Amino acid sequence: MNTFGKLLTLTSFGESHGEAVGGVLDGFPAGIRIHMDFLQEALTRRSPMQQAGSGRKEPDSVEFLSGVYEGVSLGSPIAFLIRNQDAHSGDYAALKHLFRPAHADDTYFHKYGVRDERGGGRASARETAVRVAGGALAEMFLKQLCERQGAPEIEIHAYTKQIGTVCLPDEAENALDMAEIYTSPTRCPHEETDRKMQEVLKQCREEKDSTGGVVRCVVKNMPRNLGEPIYDKLSARLAGAMLGINAARGFEIGMGFDAAAQKGSVHNDTWREDGNTTHNYAGGVRGGISTGEALTFNVAFKPIPSLMREQTLLREDGKLENITLTGRHDVCCVPRAVSVVKAMTALVLADFTLLDRCSRL
Amino acid sequence: MNTFGKLLTLTSFGESHGEAVGGVLDGFPAGIRIHMDFLQEALTRRSPMQQAGSGRKEPDSVEFLSGVYEGVSLGSPIAFLIRNQDAHSGDYAALKHLFRPAHADDTYFHKYGVRDERGGGRASARETAVRVAGGALAEMFLKQLCERQGAPEIEIHAYTKQIGTVCLPDEAENALDMAEIYTSPTRCPHEETDRKMQEVLKQCREEKDSTGGVVRCVVKNMPRNLGEPIYDKLSARLAGAMLGINAARGFEIGMGFDAAAQKGSVHNDTWREDGNTTHNYAGGVRGGISTGEALTFNVAFKPIPSLMREQTLLREDGKLENITLTGRHDVCCVPRAVSVVKAMTALVLADFTLLDRCSRL
Amino acid sequence: MNTFGKLLTLTSFGESHGEAVGGVLDGFPAGIRIHMDFLQEALTRRSPMQQAGSGRKEPDSVEFLSGVYEGVSLGSPIAFLIRNQDAHSGDYAALKHLFRPAHADDTYFHKYGVRDERGGGRASARETAVRVAGGALAEMFLKQLCERQGAPEIEIHAYTKQIGTVCLPDEAENALDMAEIYTSPTRCPHEETDRKMQEVLKQCREEKDSTGGVVRCVVKNMPRNLGEPIYDKLSARLAGAMLGINAARGFEIGMGFDAAAQKGSVHNDTWREDGNTTHNYAGGVRGGISTGEALTFNVAFKPIPSLMREQTLLREDGKLENITLTGRHDVCCVPRAVSVVKAMTALVLADFTLLDRCSRL
Amino acid sequence: MNTFGKLLTLTSFGESHGEAVGGVLDGFPAGIRIHMDFLQEALTRRSPMQQAGSGRKEPDSVEFLSGVYEGVSLGSPIAFLIRNQDAHSGDYAALKHLFRPAHADDTYFHKYGVRDERGGGRASARETAVRVAGGALAEMFLKQLCERQGAPEIEIHAYTKQIGTVCLPDEAENALDMAEIYTSPTRCPHEETDRKMQEVLKQCREEKDSTGGVVRCVVKNMPRNLGEPIYDKLSARLAGAMLGINAARGFEIGMGFDAAAQKGSVHNDTWREDGNTTHNYAGGVRGGISTGEALTFNVAFKPIPSLMREQTLLREDGKLENITLTGRHDVCCVPRAVSVVKAMTALVLADFTLLDRCSRL
Repeated sequence: MNTFGKLLTLTSFGESHGEAVGGVLDGFPAGIRIHMDFLQEALTRRSPMQQAGSGRKEPDSVEFLSGVYEGVSLGSPIAFLIRNQDAHSGDYAALKHLFRPAHADDTYFHKYGVRDERGGGRASARETAVRVAGGALAEMFLKQLCERQGAPEIEIHAYTKQIGTVCLPDEAENALDMAEIYTSPTRCPHEETDRKMQEVLKQCREEKDSTGGVVRCVVKNMPRNLGEPIYDKLSARLAGAMLGINAARGFEIGMGFDAAAQKGSVHNDTWREDGNTTHNYAGGVRGGISTGEALTFNVAFKPIPSLMREQTLLREDGKLENITLTGRHDVCCVPRAVSVVKAMTALVLADFTLLDRCSRL
Repeated sequence: MNTFGKLLTLTSFGESHGEAVGGVLDGFPAGIRIHMDFLQEALTRRSPMQQAGSGRKEPDSVEFLSGVYEGVSLGSPIAFLIRNQDAHSGDYAALKHLFRPAHADDTYFHKYGVRDERGGGRASARETAVRVAGGALAEMFLKQLCERQGAPEIEIHAYTKQIGTVCLPDEAENALDMAEIYTSPTRCPHEETDRKMQEVLKQCREEKDSTGGVVRCVVKNMPRNLGEPIYDKLSARLAGAMLGINAARGFEIGMGFDAAAQKGSVHNDTWREDGNTTHNYAGGVRGGISTGEALTFNVAFKPIPSLMREQTLLREDGKLENITLTGRHDVCCVPRAVSVVKAMTALVLADFTLLDRCSRL
Repeated sequence: MNTFGKLLTLTSFGESHGEAVGGVLDGFPAGIRIHMDFLQEALTRRSPMQQAGSGRKEPDSVEFLSGVYEGVSLGSPIAFLIRNQDAHSGDYAALKHLFRPAHADDTYFHKYGVRDERGGGRASARETAVRVAGGALAEMFLKQLCERQGAPEIEIHAYTKQIGTVCLPDEAENALDMAEIYTSPTRCPHEETDRKMQEVLKQCREEKDSTGGVVRCVVKNMPRNLGEPIYDKLSARLAGAMLGINAARGFEIGMGFDAAAQKGSVHNDTWREDGNTTHNYAGGVRGGISTGEALTFNVAFKPIPSLMREQTLLREDGKLENITLTGRHDVCCVPRAVSVVKAMTALVLADFTLLDRCSRL
Repeated sequence: MNTFGKLLTLTSFGESHGEAVGGVLDGFPAGIRIHMDFLQEALTRRSPMQQAGSGRKEPDSVEFLSGVYEGVSLGSPIAFLIRNQDAHSGDYAALKHLFRPAHADDTYFHKYGVRDERGGGRASARETAVRVAGGALAEMFLKQLCERQGAPEIEIHAYTKQIGTVCLPDEAENALDMAEIYTSPTRCPHEETDRKMQEVLKQCREEKDSTGGVVRCVVKNMPRNLGEPIYDKLSARLAGAMLGINAARGFEIGMGFDAAAQKGSVHNDTWREDGNTTHNYAGGVRGGISTGEALTFNVAFKPIPSLMREQTLLREDGKLENITLTGRHDVCCVPRAVSVVKAMTALVLADFTLLDRCSRL
């Protein structure tokens, strides 16, 4: 249940305010060079330190326990952990018998009968650091495989498409410089939109409110043949991977929900002689299998539920109670979710790359 | 890869124009009464016979091979098959070396090196009959479990929310009579919208075009505690299940993509003293676990790609060729997808019901 | 639970006296030529028709439902079924509320609360026909892969090593002509031992008794690198596969139980310069991974429990009852188990062959 | 591949001389009291400190990282690690391009292309500490479940049955006092046999040789209904679990290999009116499902391959080389394997206990 993937599997563990979060990446092929700086950079990008709105100061430095020897993967499980060094569990003592609105407090309590109320416990977004570390390793595999095969290097780009009501204009999509994604804390690589988004975030902080948004992911130099019909289509696995991210509420691939209103005569993208299509309306997946065109999808996120204002909480005994929560919280998860979307995409693609080795005699 | 589920697993087989499609449902608990009429009705509702736009006349009658004895499930695998009796494979001979636009022809060919070009082979929507049969069995389990526990009977309702640009108005949602779903071939239980949708479909047929749409699913009397964090959240598994349906392009739960523009102060649904929320913005899932409130989600479908007009196809050798396809095709998959969405939902909920038996000591 | 394998999976279904037994082989690579005569011969060898002691006359002819097109595997699930044509269910009516000694009657009843008492239901050895069909397909894959790679063709030989107290002498092992295995109904390719075994079987039939025995399996031209440490060692998976066969009671690889009494200075097989060892005491597996030397293991089987003499049965209500059973039964399962051991070995090796495609970058 | 179990899963990681070995136990139900002293005692019993023949001095103290809060399991993954504090990696520098006889050095090298030569790397028996920790947790679950159900407490006893040619006499089996198992370093709870075994071990040390042996496992107060036909029989899963232990070479349940020579009229154990059998020849499993009688099986182990005398090693380049190895090694793995057999049994039984919750409506 806490394991993601079929051949390349990431098993995650850890509560937000326990000893550590961490993971075990199994099925990782032997002979891959492990670049620690690449991994650390991925973690740093996800980390709250870069987000103006978050007070948590942990460096999220990863410790490897196994599976790597002399800088190269052994083919054995790669275990790693990230200590929880900066946890203020005292902030949560008041919550022991209270369920916050729009959190998982009550559902964990009912399902398990017990819960770690500190920082959301297992339901905390802190767990996503594990995914980012696993995803960075998966990306190393994908890139070194391209190198080995003499293919153009795969590029997985996730960025902020929408925050609140501010949305990146469609006409800007094709001109984006992906190298700009991490230059702004919003993770939106479009200067004008970035400025408006920063304004929204600033206003949220002032109003002690929060907002949702949308992450877009575009994979360039995408390999063909990834995805397994029927139930394990590339689009299906990606949807599952994305809705598994904290606060995710929706997924769409290619034209997504807009395809519902299209006519077939329009949506049936015309072939070009190179075997690609004119518009890539399919978002790089037909019949659940990658076409080799760019993979494109969106993921919607709801507003962060923790607000620094008075809210009504539900007590275990069914009574309501008004409380002003303390603690440290972002006002929008989207800029950090960008890193998680990218990581989960890498894990999915790496797993399917291995699975496709078994498609043909 | 062709198996869905973790404890309750449906393994599907069959090409559209092969001998049969069918499935093996394993992990199905012993002692459940199997109602053949309930199952057959589910298949009939999915069947093209009820769709004005489809010419295929197969009754889709299911043959059980194992797992049921004296009307009761044995706990052993339930195998069933549905013969392909009305397949006009000759219609497809011309397609042996051609890839239709927006189909899976080319991706299957590249992935496997061989393909069954007849009727889309494995990629055909005919496979969804297997899901409907499996889902009907899963629903019997869920309902008999409610009965056993003295709980109100779970109700899984899927219906057409949008066809083309015609969409069921939000304000109509709460007044729907779910008993009306199957009275119209559109599967929309709202008279006025149904009439408009029928008009859209009629126009598509006249123009030899097709259209997309959206299916909405609402589960009433939903049990608590279903869904397994972290990667196997109820929302994640549903998203994967839905995107695994042919032509699906998007999934959203609760407020879905609209949550992106919401403020936390709005989206943070207020508690009522009964432990439910005022608006159920979460769609019945918090932290990946069901809350016991109604489960609500939408699935977007693209237009059916097979058009009865001249289209440009891609040849295996990379040349383009204009062809007018023959054969029998719907103009919109949504009315039939309603049955598949319902079935996949039942399979997901039944599987999680079994998994939750292991959550606590 | 009724699925065997990780990447190449065989899902089995069917009760002995239900409509059919059958299977779905998934993960089978595309592009493999399917030889129906090879498959049918494997089924015929397992079939009771060849055993003097069994009265059941079914031809065990297999019907393919999917996954094969124009004689070649499609990469989609291969479903097949074998109808139960010659079932005398009336023989079992008396057993509805009785548990036979050394059968699974009582354990199925307690576990599931219901059971199909006809012919042992799901616990019948009839299910092994499914394994033999799946194994034959796996063997085609393994052999065609050798051909593709220009490697010597893998040979999986299973034969009878012991029946009752008659055991093939160790010194005869190296001189066996594996082509002789199927010339005798005992499946022992050693003339003198075969004669003695036939005598044992004849005596059992006369005394209305039964006997156990041992199957030995030797795989020649075995590929390197098969098996996945830690928990999925080749030896571990084989042990699980073999103990999963009806009536199996023991498994040993290489020196097996005799290794317990050996000194390390003896068991530490000396290297030869070609990288092989002098005695292959390890049976072709070190650290759970195949060495490329011959794979050798034994499987012990208990006597068939169905005897044509009066026996004491346990009633559901806890009383004992003396009954003389009717029906048709072998006196020793070993000659037929030979086919099942071979089939399960092929399934294991094919699955590990696919898994090993993912070991290295 | 490094994950054991289906619902209760233990994912293992770590090389012998890397940072740590450890595991993640997932699917562990919430609400179980975690007794650290019970766990530590299990690890201490496995540890080389208690074995006269082994020089490694690590205390094997376990560090919990997650899944336990206020002394109770949370239902989330329990991660733990055991640091490698006393590793003399220098001992192994000479082995970088050499393959020892009867070790996994060459098979890992060929499979992965790289290897961690220090202390056997991933193939080291040090990994079994992870199993012992996981098994101790599984045992807590099993015992607390008995307590909850008011059933007699399950007892899993593994002990040394044979070392070299010294074997516990059959007639002694029934009179064993299981409380004596851990009083002797041989783990044989029979005074006279224990003395002879100690003599064998002493002689091996003097001769710089090693020896094999057999572990026997007896589970008392065994619950009914554990085990899943067809491929996941209790006997099959146990066989796989046991052959997955380092140096294991054979497995037999109940009468095991001796059943091969039995007549059915003997082996068909007679019923008693309490539903049990007279001799429990079946070892507590019929049709792959536990009968509620004692579970009994044996596991054979080969001699430890590391000898402190000159041996011939194979070089990567195919040449042979005579070397006297240094390092610290037991002369027989059986006394420590006792702990591992017990642990794997607990993991298997706990997993099947969860699976059986889904057998019936």
